[in-house]
Amino acid sequence: MTPRDWLHKFGAALERGDLNAAAGLFEPGGFWRDLVAFTWNIRTCEGRAEIKAMLAATLAATRPSSFAAKTDEWFTFETALGRGIGHLRLRNKQAWTLLTTLQELKGFEERRESNEASPAAKAPFVLIVGGGQGGIALAARLKRLGVPAAVVEKNARAGDSWRKRYASLCLHDPVWYDHMPYLPFPDYWPVFTPKDRMGDWLEMYVKVMQLDYRASTVCTRATFQDGAWEVQLVSNGEPLTLRPKHLVLATGMSGFPQMPKTAGLENFAGTVLHSSKFEGGAAWKGKHAVVVGSGTSAHDICQDLHAHGAAEVTMIQRAPSIVVRSESLMELAWGPLYSEQAVARGISTAIADLTVASVPFKVLPDLQKPIYAEIRKRDADLYAGLEKAGFQYNFGEDGSGIHALYLRRGAGYYIETGASQMIIDGRIKLKAGVSVDHFNQKSVSLTDGSVLAADLVVFATGYGSMNEWARELISPEVADKVGKVWGLGSDMKGDPGPWVGELRNMWKPTRQENLWFHGGNLMQSRHYSLYLALQLKARYEGMATPVYYLEPVHHLS
Amino acid sequence: MTPRDWLHKFGAALERGDLNAAAGLFEPGGFWRDLVAFTWNIRTCEGRAEIKAMLAATLAATRPSSFAAKTDEWFTFETALGRGIGHLRLRNKQAWTLLTTLQELKGFEERRESNEASPAAKAPFVLIVGGGQGGIALAARLKRLGVPAAVVEKNARAGDSWRKRYASLCLHDPVWYDHMPYLPFPDYWPVFTPKDRMGDWLEMYVKVMQLDYRASTVCTRATFQDGAWEVQLVSNGEPLTLRPKHLVLATGMSGFPQMPKTAGLENFAGTVLHSSKFEGGAAWKGKHAVVVGSGTSAHDICQDLHAHGAAEVTMIQRAPSIVVRSESLMELAWGPLYSEQAVARGISTAIADLTVASVPFKVLPDLQKPIYAEIRKRDADLYAGLEKAGFQYNFGEDGSGIHALYLRRGAGYYIETGASQMIIDGRIKLKAGVSVDHFNQKSVSLTDGSVLAADLVVFATGYGSMNEWARELISPEVADKVGKVWGLGSDMKGDPGPWVGELRNMWKPTRQENLWFHGGNLMQSRHYSLYLALQLKARYEGMATPVYYLEPVHHLS
Repeated sequence: MTPRDWLHKFGAALERGDLNAAAGLFEPGGFWRDLVAFTWNIRTCEGRAEIKAMLAATLAATRPSSFAAKTDEWFTFETALGRGIGHLRLRNKQAWTLLTTLQELKGFEERRESNEASPAAKAPFVLIVGGGQGGIALAARLKRLGVPAAVVEKNARAGDSWRKRYASLCLHDPVWYDHMPYLPFPDYWPVFTPKDRMGDWLEMYVKVMQLDYRASTVCTRATFQDGAWEVQLVSNGEPLTLRPKHLVLATGMSGFPQMPKTAGLENFAGTVLHSSKFEGGAAWKGKHAVVVGSGTSAHDICQDLHAHGAAEVTMIQRAPSIVVRSESLMELAWGPLYSEQAVARGISTAIADLTVASVPFKVLPDLQKPIYAEIRKRDADLYAGLEKAGFQYNFGEDGSGIHALYLRRGAGYYIETGASQMIIDGRIKLKAGVSVDHFNQKSVSLTDGSVLAADLVVFATGYGSMNEWARELISPEVADKVGKVWGLGSDMKGDPGPWVGELRNMWKPTRQENLWFHGGNLMQSRHYSLYLALQLKARYEGMATPVYYLEPVHHLS
Repeated sequence: MTPRDWLHKFGAALERGDLNAAAGLFEPGGFWRDLVAFTWNIRTCEGRAEIKAMLAATLAATRPSSFAAKTDEWFTFETALGRGIGHLRLRNKQAWTLLTTLQELKGFEERRESNEASPAAKAPFVLIVGGGQGGIALAARLKRLGVPAAVVEKNARAGDSWRKRYASLCLHDPVWYDHMPYLPFPDYWPVFTPKDRMGDWLEMYVKVMQLDYRASTVCTRATFQDGAWEVQLVSNGEPLTLRPKHLVLATGMSGFPQMPKTAGLENFAGTVLHSSKFEGGAAWKGKHAVVVGSGTSAHDICQDLHAHGAAEVTMIQRAPSIVVRSESLMELAWGPLYSEQAVARGISTAIADLTVASVPFKVLPDLQKPIYAEIRKRDADLYAGLEKAGFQYNFGEDGSGIHALYLRRGAGYYIETGASQMIIDGRIKLKAGVSVDHFNQKSVSLTDGSVLAADLVVFATGYGSMNEWARELISPEVADKVGKVWGLGSDMKGDPGPWVGELRNMWKPTRQENLWFHGGNLMQSRHYSLYLALQLKARYEGMATPVYYLEPVHHLS
């Protein structure tokens, strides 16, 4: 059976409502991932029973048709309300993985802008809290779809959340992965964008896209009543109330700082910061710095402190983390989809994004493991050096590397761009397998009894779940009703089970009516903003959007 | 003989230095247009004798090689110093037209930017006077080539020269024609960019390209001595002297306002403006306005005044002008190279630009005439209406339309986007074949003796030659040494003969050492900025740049 034959049979089975025939075209354990096209949700069905149950609930309203193969893997299709793109992987004549994505709503396609000046901004139907790359990308999609939306941002200028960080910060993902929607970076752009250029690009983007972007505006309280939100804001010092129908928290998947409570803090004469507040090493020349954590921020900050002449920089590694050389990751992990070579092979950003989306999260680790096995061999010198320095590295609990780890808990890895070599060389000191026990006046005592002189202690200890923002802005009840945001239920560290198969609460309906979470890295902000925008557009136009399957809440944070 | 055969023979003849054989591969009256690759100049050789003379002077230094056909029309080649792209049109086995263009200098290719922050701006090797689209495009090219360059602009913000114009102004060229280098407009961009969006785009572009752009800076005097310029500036109110090696006047091909001296001005109680100073019709509601001229500005301004409720708007048409419907121009003139359809056919901006460049200016009118013959038929209703209203229209003195007219004198046409219909309807009044004889206190008297009440008189009477800027900034002697800028020597109105075959003094060496003129429409600013930038880069790197053929100066302004 060719992919075209399969697709023909599949389309025919759906059109005649034959659920058994449709499900039977999959492997018994096959996957169907749907992005909004069938489910008005983001949902992966695993196995024939789940596929059949999904179809039973959605087929009548979806009325899929016009399945048309474009290549052996890619196809297009229509539903009652929209047009979609799909991806198919066959194994032994049966579908191993199927992806269906909604790309546009019929009658509401994105159109070239008219020559007329933009009309004045309307009262927002959607309020987006947080004006970083996530909120901006979503606002741009909504703008193009004609959905009135406003973005509120606490900083004075778009891009400030990048500008305010330490000077050496740059993106660790390559430029091909980082494009914003509609307006890609120019061809000559650096592979790894420095933070100020990213900030300036976002500021420019807000202007060029003519977004309703309200800087210096803080959201203080949001209440849902009578089918809409009442949101209290302070904008440039003035109180302001908005009544959007939908509220999107785009406050940063890494946005809610998390610091361990540590004894003796009140006695400490030095400075204690969460990594998100670290503005650069210049102030710490000749001083003693302790950085708690061994992820990306911890490494970057140690490197920055050392570069600025700190007298001593010590990393406190509490638990193993993944380290991978940037070059190896570029060649083996990003290269096939996001690279100069991929562009030369005709792989557009959209195709790359859809290809990534076509891999069910359950399948992903096994596809990633060979990459890391190869990396371990290729960069044996790096790992030998780290081992000698006492650094505790791994490749994830199951050896599947940073992509899978990022989806599980959004942290726990470092892409080597210099700091690992400094650890190996001893320029950055390391204490591994310990944590801070308590503060003294001018030092910290570690759990192994050792003491480190300290003028500065940076906790590069990560971020809490995004529903902490709901707790702060809305209520503890809503935060608990919605539950934990992010993670797949892999039952590994930071991502407790049971397995849910999709990122919890991201870009899809939550258990709080009209509350949405948006964010992630630049690729996710770009790609998933489309599906969130289409969900909001359908609601704005009053379409029926029956949501299939709301995940039970297993964890409160 | 196939194009590949021709190219093979041509390359072989050049490599063995056989000028007769090379020239003999052209039609007796064939054309070779060279953009910097052979001549370090912009030069069209017309006929075998000119071709042979050019080769005799340039071949030894150029050492062309590696001619390689890419399609039946396009080829690549190398010279001693650079790499180029060429275009060939064969007729009866001989070359009718040949284009050779330098695209990059060996060892100085444009490279992806590094992740490092840009180093602080160096003292400029090139000073660009005028920060509109022309100056900005050139500065961007020089930035990418690593040539220190600064742009000085009298306005406070990049883009102000667009923002300050009347509100209804928008580009009359379609978006595909208007891209800036490196960073094209997004796909959804309006076909005809409104002026404020253009202004904002330029401001963003300056920032994203990290240009050394000095706003609120006026150039007061420039003197050439000892092989460099001494330039006096006033920057934000403070005097400043710069000593660049090269000076580029990018002050606007339409930048030096030209107004006829008219008797009685001192008695006039109303307002008199050049079109470039007209900021919009809002101030003239209920007033009587007279607009002198019948080109683009005159039409736009009449339309804007009428839209804002002026009591009476009269256009004074002194001489015939070309009127063409935007839709017809789009379909018949732009469409094949600059349109959504062209993009869909794979015609990139670069290919479109090079295709335009491949047509020798001598040949252009005959290629354009059929387009206008078709337009005349298709839009017979428009022309009948204009005739009935008394409007004097033509299609250029030789019927070759606006593209040719633009090259001859940069003015004299209107792309109909509403004002012509207003003239036909009588909403805009028209007096044709007359001019203003003198001003009275509250009116103007025309040369036919009629009198028009006037609160406002706008002279939409065009612009002087760009060497007027040299007269003002440098000296009358330098202005006269350089001579008239723009025009081909067609011996038609505004473009006196003799024929010179290229735009006078544009983007190429002038008779004043180290003085250059840059500008034109957005397409020209984009495309020719490459060749001007390469000429400057070669000089910056100390390469030998023997200039072949400096045009004699036939006209002083």
